[in-house]
Amino acid sequence: MRFPHIAPTAQLELGAALAAAINNKTKPLGSLGALERLASRLGLIQSTVAPTVRQPAILVFAGDHGVVAEGVSAYPQDVTWQMVENFLAQGAAINVFARQNGCDLHVVDAGVNHDFGPRRGLVDRKVAHGTRNFAREAAMTPEQCAAALEHGAALMADLPGNVVGFGEMGIGNTTAAASLMHKLTGIPVADCVGAGTGLSAEGVLHKQRVIEAAVRHHAGVDEPLGVLATFGGFEIAMMTGAMLQAAALRKVLLIDGFIATSALLVATHIAPAILDYCVFAHCSDEAGHRRMLDALGAEPLLQLNLRLGEGTGAALALPLLHAAVNFLNEMATFASASVSEKSA
Amino acid sequence: MRFPHIAPTAQLELGAALAAAINNKTKPLGSLGALERLASRLGLIQSTVAPTVRQPAILVFAGDHGVVAEGVSAYPQDVTWQMVENFLAQGAAINVFARQNGCDLHVVDAGVNHDFGPRRGLVDRKVAHGTRNFAREAAMTPEQCAAALEHGAALMADLPGNVVGFGEMGIGNTTAAASLMHKLTGIPVADCVGAGTGLSAEGVLHKQRVIEAAVRHHAGVDEPLGVLATFGGFEIAMMTGAMLQAAALRKVLLIDGFIATSALLVATHIAPAILDYCVFAHCSDEAGHRRMLDALGAEPLLQLNLRLGEGTGAALALPLLHAAVNFLNEMATFASASVSEKSA
Repeated sequence: MRFPHIAPTAQLELGAALAAAINNKTKPLGSLGALERLASRLGLIQSTVAPTVRQPAILVFAGDHGVVAEGVSAYPQDVTWQMVENFLAQGAAINVFARQNGCDLHVVDAGVNHDFGPRRGLVDRKVAHGTRNFAREAAMTPEQCAAALEHGAALMADLPGNVVGFGEMGIGNTTAAASLMHKLTGIPVADCVGAGTGLSAEGVLHKQRVIEAAVRHHAGVDEPLGVLATFGGFEIAMMTGAMLQAAALRKVLLIDGFIATSALLVATHIAPAILDYCVFAHCSDEAGHRRMLDALGAEPLLQLNLRLGEGTGAALALPLLHAAVNFLNEMATFASASVSEKSA
Repeated sequence: MRFPHIAPTAQLELGAALAAAINNKTKPLGSLGALERLASRLGLIQSTVAPTVRQPAILVFAGDHGVVAEGVSAYPQDVTWQMVENFLAQGAAINVFARQNGCDLHVVDAGVNHDFGPRRGLVDRKVAHGTRNFAREAAMTPEQCAAALEHGAALMADLPGNVVGFGEMGIGNTTAAASLMHKLTGIPVADCVGAGTGLSAEGVLHKQRVIEAAVRHHAGVDEPLGVLATFGGFEIAMMTGAMLQAAALRKVLLIDGFIATSALLVATHIAPAILDYCVFAHCSDEAGHRRMLDALGAEPLLQLNLRLGEGTGAALALPLLHAAVNFLNEMATFASASVSEKSA
């Protein structure tokens, strides 16, 4: 399949203009730290010294995973569709945080093993009733993987705002994400797996063994789309497609936790420049996330020990995006406020 | 002088009720991390399983420091009053962030070396036109220190909300704060000093030498109020008084950066239970702040490499306080949403 072109954001003159605008504000040089880097990034993405956060949206992609048959999750598979119902009823954490921070929320059925029927507020892009068990066979056919990528891209075309956050729900999806991480970074499986929704130490070890066996079973699958189809999930592939298209549309990509970052990891193998468009919301307590972020050279805004997914980290980071554009657009300069500059 | 009584917040039954309420929400156990600890803390402070964030306010205390005569700051002393003017004109970082996050802002002249005259929006509690140079003599008289503490306490009586953030402005005040830190924790001066508004490495070393000489000069001053009067600042002492009174009124204390934490450090020596009322907003890039927080056993919510003061960390952390009370008050439970519980 064809992927959209993503242009690097670097522009020497604009970068210098943004640095000058930031440094002229009434504050010690560099003293707004991560917010200064964030303001610069938003300016480069939007090609302006006055970036904005306009009608931000979070998309939560839900999908089921055949690999749960191997006993890799602390919760039963039904929790995936039950939590989708909870999203639709406004009762989940992401509903609360998106509402609080003025963020649109879209719930996408990418491949849940449940028939919801036509439902107000649910975007139906179901590829299949869950993936197959990748301990035995590839999770998706190449056609299913392509369909998921294309659905994701198409969703971006209708999105009005300039910031889009990526979240997910899918029992078993930390197993898929850890497998993608191992295959695409070479980091040992033991350093990619974590407790997910709450496995015991024994459960984590079992999960590691399941992944190691699956990796041996699918030896030779190494190119990114093959890896995605073999070990991924419909929600992950749909996020990958959405992220690539969002960057091509020069939107700001707000990347949530372990699963969303694994979808981005796949995207970086297709179009490395996508990283220029990313803001990393939160470093999860899921064991592998810190190393996955390090592999991407990513500096997350928040470290709140969350390990919930759903896009909660993205929703919670949104006020910091507002803070970055607001200080750049609203603060006085040394000259306008008649404040003396540094003397030493 | 007399200080108000501060009761520890621990209540076994309420603590258990808060834990149960948090654990029944539709999310893996513990998966909201720092927000769960925060929700619990707010519940204990407010004696309820349904805490709120009502009309939050940030007070910015400004004061000048005689010790600037020793060349310890990168900016001239006039910047203190110039930045107060900037606060009144809505042009500083704290104005932007407080406005964004729906937070009242009060600017207090605790002891700026400038005559503002009566000014709309400026709370005049000036003790003197700056402290004396503590390299030579005590920064304040005992009477001045007591006046600052009492003014701070009195300000809390009129404050309508249940969350109060503490910020400051004062050229030279990282030198005062580092001295308080050294005297009250025993941490070597070299580990307490940092670049402040932007000293060179040479400047930081000079600042360290100035503090070390002053500590020798005032040998024998060891009890907390003596240390505060000798090395502190009017804005620091006024914060200490305000913090003690705010905790006695069972308000949530939102502690900002290096200087505000040094004021709290003094307060903990007067009433250790004050820590039960504190939420730590941000770990500053000012070198000593991390160690000062560690000495208090504090876990800050944000680490954004800010080193600006003004209460900016407090204003930026406020959405996380809203998130903590909102998830507790608004999320569905496993039972109400018919979501299956953990199986493994």
